Amino acid sequence: MERRFVIACLVENHFGVLARISGLFSARGFNIDSLTVGATEDPSISRMTIVVLGDERIMEQVKKQLNKLIDVIKVLDLSSNNYVDRELALIKINITKESRMSALQLFEVFQAKVVDITLKSVTAEVSGSTQKIAAFIEMLKPFGIIETARTGKIALTRESVNGD
Amino acid sequence: MERRFVIACLVENHFGVLARISGLFSARGFNIDSLTVGATEDPSISRMTIVVLGDERIMEQVKKQLNKLIDVIKVLDLSSNNYVDRELALIKINITKESRMSALQLFEVFQAKVVDITLKSVTAEVSGSTQKIAAFIEMLKPFGIIETARTGKIALTRESVNGD
Repeated sequence: MERRFVIACLVENHFGVLARISGLFSARGFNIDSLTVGATEDPSISRMTIVVLGDERIMEQVKKQLNKLIDVIKVLDLSSNNYVDRELALIKINITKESRMSALQLFEVFQAKVVDITLKSVTAEVSGSTQKIAAFIEMLKPFGIIETARTGKIALTRESVNGD
Repeated sequence: MERRFVIACLVENHFGVLARISGLFSARGFNIDSLTVGATEDPSISRMTIVVLGDERIMEQVKKQLNKLIDVIKVLDLSSNNYVDRELALIKINITKESRMSALQLFEVFQAKVVDITLKSVTAEVSGSTQKIAAFIEMLKPFGIIETARTGKIALTRESVNGD
């Protein structure tokens, strides 16, 4: 059965590990929705978060193979438990003297921050769920989107029983 | 001369492209500080942001090779211009009845949001520069860090002359 997986991998920060891991997913035909790799509190260890759509049975094989890779310390399937996830985006849009105020009001609604502004363009920073960011981008389309950059999801296991 | 590069690649959202690109960097001995790949406003196109430390001359070759790859639409060296960059982190720490208030006060200082809380732990979401996030994590260490996940940098070219 196909579903969306959120996989976190703790890896030794050596070169080549990212290529090996992403190669493992693409060799099995998994398309990667998003992938992030960043430092942890221990500079020798990086944490990867991978969001993929794929088959449950094939994912079991991929997880086993990930665990066998040198440099892979730990593999967590967050999507099989409760987890908290967030994503960040930078979005640059066109503005005019007339449209500026309505753009800034929209930023307030979405709790977006202005990170760069000129007479002709403004860049917003927004964080939240993938759905919230998609909704924000949708609302900004009428202004004319110049450029966007999204981090993709990061996620940690949720400790509380309920939550947003 | 070695320096830190911030490279953005617009790529067709096909499987294998991530493995090919990260393979290209690791084959040249570049260690990847952070890498993110996420959707753009066009679902068939993804944007990768790669932060690497490496040699200026070798990077010129890598950029040429990236441009030759099928599925690579555009390669931007943001670090050769003015750019805005941001990063997102989720950080889970231990709390007790006694330490909870001082943790929450620290969150306020860093404009971090609580995304999950129990009697024993709290997870914060924080965004900003790599330096700000590093400073926040440093301040949280005395509480006991359970887990962290960082997205790595995303970046867009800056339009204004000055800025943070």
